[in-house]
Amino acid sequence: MVGAIDELITELARLPGIGRKTAQRLTFHLLQQPSDQVSRLAAALTGVVERVRPCGECGNLSEVEQCGICSDPTRDGALLCIVEEPSTVSVVEKATSFRGRYLVLGGRLSPIDGIGPEQLRMGLLRRRIEAGGLREVILATNPSLEGEATSTYIQQLLAGKGIRVTRLARGLPVGGDLEYVDGVTLSHALQARQEVS
Amino acid sequence: MVGAIDELITELARLPGIGRKTAQRLTFHLLQQPSDQVSRLAAALTGVVERVRPCGECGNLSEVEQCGICSDPTRDGALLCIVEEPSTVSVVEKATSFRGRYLVLGGRLSPIDGIGPEQLRMGLLRRRIEAGGLREVILATNPSLEGEATSTYIQQLLAGKGIRVTRLARGLPVGGDLEYVDGVTLSHALQARQEVS
Repeated sequence: MVGAIDELITELARLPGIGRKTAQRLTFHLLQQPSDQVSRLAAALTGVVERVRPCGECGNLSEVEQCGICSDPTRDGALLCIVEEPSTVSVVEKATSFRGRYLVLGGRLSPIDGIGPEQLRMGLLRRRIEAGGLREVILATNPSLEGEATSTYIQQLLAGKGIRVTRLARGLPVGGDLEYVDGVTLSHALQARQEVS
Repeated sequence: MVGAIDELITELARLPGIGRKTAQRLTFHLLQQPSDQVSRLAAALTGVVERVRPCGECGNLSEVEQCGICSDPTRDGALLCIVEEPSTVSVVEKATSFRGRYLVLGGRLSPIDGIGPEQLRMGLLRRRIEAGGLREVILATNPSLEGEATSTYIQQLLAGKGIRVTRLARGLPVGGDLEYVDGVTLSHALQARQEVS
């Protein structure tokens, strides 16, 4: 295998969910494409490295100092949704009609991986709390152990500030099958059962 | 979604087997990596565009005018293995102890896609036949309808030249299960059954 091809296979194989075989298949596919498609992919990669950085206000990814959501005056600044990753912002934006602001922590508390509050954007959050004007904080961390721990930590930060704290509902995934749902989800769903009008 | 991120998602989603969701996941993964990993991937892509081209002699991918296999004097030049794609060369090289040379057609005959002999490297093959000295040609096209048609076409080119023509054996895949093997493979395997010593 020649050097340039091997290098590309190695780099592609670093991506999550892509093993060496898939990386090889992708490489040979790319080699059969017009070279400008490959160049466009290379340029797109260079583009994100050079242009994308965290928004100074909310931590979301942005090409400018203040991201489009933070600089949008029609958004409700008193309603703050706290998420772990930028990808969650785009999921919420696409799927819901949420019109508040976000705070992107950049991860979750995980002492075992050496991630404490200092490794997350808790400073931005504190500044936001101190600035005042918050009516409600929605905790939208992942429904995992670390996500829950992160939410609990933030709950403590917010205690006694007169801010409403909510979190995303736990329950059955729509389209799911009762037979395959896990016990914890099911007991959450039972506990939080909703009135049928 | 900001422009640079969207561009990268779009370019990644062009790859085979990668839908928009996976492209999004890969993009957000890359955004969390140190920027030099992303730059290395971009450089590797640019590298194949700039440095890799078909070998002038066999059509295999190479960074030099004559590929490493064609320029290797210890290889048997009288033994020629004809394959459709460069990826097959690397598979054969890795898995077998084949020490002959290759000819990479660059595809298979497929009139429905407008691919006739002129779209393949039949010119290189003719030159190779005319140069003389060939003892055996191994047809290693894919065991598909188009692959078989391509092999038949080459067989006709070689007819009456006194060159031995062989093809890869058809039979049961090792590790396969008789229950799931298709009928055509099974009847091939039965017809070509081998003596047990």
